[in-house]
Amino acid sequence: MERLSVWAPDGLPEIRPGDDLGDLLAGLLAGLDEHDRPRDGDVVVVTSKIVSKAEGRVVAAADREQAITDETVRVVARRERPGLPPLRIVENKLGLVMAAAGVDASNTPEGTVLLLPVDPDASARRIRAALARRLGVRLGVVVTDTAGRPWRDALVDIAIGCAGITPTDDLRGSADSHGRRLDVTVTAVVDEIAAATELVRGKSTGRAVAVVRGMDRHVTDDDGPGARVLVRGSADDLFREGSAEAYARGLADGRADAAADS
Amino acid sequence: MERLSVWAPDGLPEIRPGDDLGDLLAGLLAGLDEHDRPRDGDVVVVTSKIVSKAEGRVVAAADREQAITDETVRVVARRERPGLPPLRIVENKLGLVMAAAGVDASNTPEGTVLLLPVDPDASARRIRAALARRLGVRLGVVVTDTAGRPWRDALVDIAIGCAGITPTDDLRGSADSHGRRLDVTVTAVVDEIAAATELVRGKSTGRAVAVVRGMDRHVTDDDGPGARVLVRGSADDLFREGSAEAYARGLADGRADAAADS
Repeated sequence: MERLSVWAPDGLPEIRPGDDLGDLLAGLLAGLDEHDRPRDGDVVVVTSKIVSKAEGRVVAAADREQAITDETVRVVARRERPGLPPLRIVENKLGLVMAAAGVDASNTPEGTVLLLPVDPDASARRIRAALARRLGVRLGVVVTDTAGRPWRDALVDIAIGCAGITPTDDLRGSADSHGRRLDVTVTAVVDEIAAATELVRGKSTGRAVAVVRGMDRHVTDDDGPGARVLVRGSADDLFREGSAEAYARGLADGRADAAADS
Repeated sequence: MERLSVWAPDGLPEIRPGDDLGDLLAGLLAGLDEHDRPRDGDVVVVTSKIVSKAEGRVVAAADREQAITDETVRVVARRERPGLPPLRIVENKLGLVMAAAGVDASNTPEGTVLLLPVDPDASARRIRAALARRLGVRLGVVVTDTAGRPWRDALVDIAIGCAGITPTDDLRGSADSHGRRLDVTVTAVVDEIAAATELVRGKSTGRAVAVVRGMDRHVTDDDGPGARVLVRGSADDLFREGSAEAYARGLADGRADAAADS
């Protein structure tokens, strides 16, 4: 019987710019009861929020809209909202398509907002190395963020960084229970791990770290490709622009075509 | 410390049209070791595949493209693929936007495909009632399917039906650790539960059921609204049409406008 266990220890202090996050995590995890202490093959999952805090990715809140603009590589969709700044769905510097570019204004000190880590895969690698050094175990590390979905309400956590774990479980070419090839089944393992840990971390509790046991088969000796590989390339993206944006561009081009023809 | 445990028992027989799925599940779960047997507050998660099989939602594979057409309420995006039928992202009768309308050709007998359950929330309610009757416990039930995401490669499981569990964890109005209101944090609890269980169910193993312990606070006395509430309404959907489709419609309208003006 396959089993998965997830637990979210309390007790991580408030993270401040310049903190050695790997060191703080190692201290917290080393202090757990023996059964809960990470073992070879476990996965340690941390929110991007604490990674960003440790990496000093804090900016003044007066600049929230400017921060979103600065983090934006490409605007995908935009909608005006009465009494609020416009909703902006954008591709950010990490290739992630997110509302507000992933700029976060909750669980941060009043007057500040938090940007995503510059390179969450690199952050995951650093945390993994620190935990291996301090705890002497071979772990996977996942860095999470919270994301919306275009066609579903409410949010789920996804993996924006990882190290020491295969981001996907590629079953293409393997057989299903009827012996037919599974053609399109590539599972986003690290996204599912991120989602599972959100259920025990919660949003308002300050639990920013979780341990996952039972995913040994996905944990690797090397750091691996990181979660960046889960970003879909533009050639395969059928939703590069919001419907309204694409329609407006078509309308303008159609009118210009017709003008050029006449 | 918050804890979540997930396990996926082996031993469910191949499901056939007309099988009483609640009865088969109850038999399997009642036979587990005492610690693994579902208790009050646990969540039982089943794939839509076995629900569809029990409900006889099987059609001949020769009709796969026709089955997709029949399940389609609205085409969202379409792309030609050399040597393959076109990729169709559509809204199906359940309001779900999915590739191929959720029509499934894996893990089914050669020559057949499987449609999604007619009403997965109703399926979840029936399973919940059967498990309550047979096992005498108050459970949540989630029915899963596997879905793509427009901007991320690889697939994750989501909840397409549920009963006895709150689909979302609505934190709007609650305070973060700095005492600021969490404005937009509504978590898709049942989607995260679906994702967590996929990690132990796998795709090619035939394990189609999982038990989740630790989500008691989301399990309810009544059946609740079901997973249908997670479908985003059209007024809030910025991606009603693929970019190419919206652009083409704009282009045609722009040319027609210009023609009308001249």
